[in-house]
Amino acid sequence: MASNKNTIQFHVPEPTLRRLPWYLAFAKLVLKKGELYLSSTQIAKNIAVDASMVAKDLSYVNISGRTRVGYDVKQLVDVLEEFLGFTNFHKAFLFGVGSLGGALMHDNGLEQFGLQIVAGFDVKYQLAGTSINHIPIHHIERFEELQQQTGINIGVLTVPVEKAQEVSEIMVAGGIKAIWNFTPYRIVVPENIIVQNTSIYAHLAVMFNRLNALKEAHV
Amino acid sequence: MASNKNTIQFHVPEPTLRRLPWYLAFAKLVLKKGELYLSSTQIAKNIAVDASMVAKDLSYVNISGRTRVGYDVKQLVDVLEEFLGFTNFHKAFLFGVGSLGGALMHDNGLEQFGLQIVAGFDVKYQLAGTSINHIPIHHIERFEELQQQTGINIGVLTVPVEKAQEVSEIMVAGGIKAIWNFTPYRIVVPENIIVQNTSIYAHLAVMFNRLNALKEAHV
Repeated sequence: MASNKNTIQFHVPEPTLRRLPWYLAFAKLVLKKGELYLSSTQIAKNIAVDASMVAKDLSYVNISGRTRVGYDVKQLVDVLEEFLGFTNFHKAFLFGVGSLGGALMHDNGLEQFGLQIVAGFDVKYQLAGTSINHIPIHHIERFEELQQQTGINIGVLTVPVEKAQEVSEIMVAGGIKAIWNFTPYRIVVPENIIVQNTSIYAHLAVMFNRLNALKEAHV
Repeated sequence: MASNKNTIQFHVPEPTLRRLPWYLAFAKLVLKKGELYLSSTQIAKNIAVDASMVAKDLSYVNISGRTRVGYDVKQLVDVLEEFLGFTNFHKAFLFGVGSLGGALMHDNGLEQFGLQIVAGFDVKYQLAGTSINHIPIHHIERFEELQQQTGINIGVLTVPVEKAQEVSEIMVAGGIKAIWNFTPYRIVVPENIIVQNTSIYAHLAVMFNRLNALKEAHV
C-alpha cells in the first residue's frame, strides 16, 4: 500500500508531521509485543494527546482502520515509515566538521530514519582527506564539484554560528535545496529553499529554566 | 547585572525561551563585529521575526535599552547567557550509550551551552569501564549509587525507543528531576519531573516531506 504522496503532501501541517513519528514509535512497540490491531484511542492514551487529534493526523496518511478494532499494526508501521520518508535513503552532505558535526557523523541512527551523510566539508585543510565513521571529509572548495557529480541536495549545517549565513549561501549556490540547520542562527535563504531548524541548545535553555523554576517552587 | 531569576522564571513562556537563544546568537555576532548598540528592530530584521515580539521576549530578561540607541550589546550577551543558564555548568548523566548517546558524548559544544555530561550508563556490561571523549561509562546498576554521591539530577535519555519508558522510570526513581528525551517516544512521568523532548528524527520527517513537496511543485 502506497502513501498517496503525490496528491496530499503539500497539505500536511508541520505539527502533524512532528507527531506522526511518535505514533510510529508507539506502533512499532505494539507490533513488537505481537498485537495485531491498534486504535487511535489507544495511541492517544499512551502518548497523552487527544484521540481526535490522532485520528485527524492519521487522516493525512493513506490508511483506514476497522470500526471497533482499529488499524492493522503492521500496515500502520509500514505506511507511516514510507509516508515519513524513513524507508528511502536521502543522501546528504554535512557542512562544518566540528564538535556537533562530527557527533552527527558518528550517529548511525540517522540512517535508520532515512538520512545518509555521505561526506563532510570543512574549511580546515588538515581535515581534508580524513574521515569519521568511514565518512570522508573534504575541503569545502570541493563541494560544488562533488555536488555536480552526485546531485545531492540535502545539506546539514553544523558550522559555528558566525559562519552560518555565509556557508548557507555557498550551499544554496552549489545546489543544496534543503538545509538542516543545527546552528542557533536564523539563516536567510531564497523562498524555494527548505530550512529545518533543530537548535538542540535552545532546548537546553528551556530545560534549565524549568529546572530552576522547579527548584524555587520547593524552597 | 543579574537576571532576576527568582521572581520571574515561572512566567517565561516556552516559545520565548526558544527564541532568546536566536537573539543571543545574533547579539554575539554583532559584538564580534565591534558594534556597541543593538535595537530590537535590528534583531527582528535579521532574524525575520516581528520587532514587537523581540521587545516582548526581551522584557522577560532584566535589561533595558536606550531610546533610539538600543541595548548595550555586551550587556545583552551577558544577561542573555546568564538568563538562559549557559554560564553555569549543569552536570548530567546520559542513559543509553548507543549511536546517538555516543554522538552526544562526543559533542563538546554542549559544554559551551552549560551542559556537562559526566557519565554514561548502559545495560551492556562490555561497555562498563570504557569511556568516550574522556567521559566514563558505567553499568546502569551503578546509577543510584553515583547519583547519591553526586546529586546530579539531569538525565539525557538516548536509549532505544522500546526502553524509553522503563529507563525513564529508573531515572526518576533514582533522583533525576529533568529528562532530556531524545527518543521519539512520549515518556510518561510524574508531574514534577521536567521533560524536554528533542526528537531530531521527527525534524527529518518534516524536512523530507517539504523536499518532496518542492520537487512535485517543479514537475
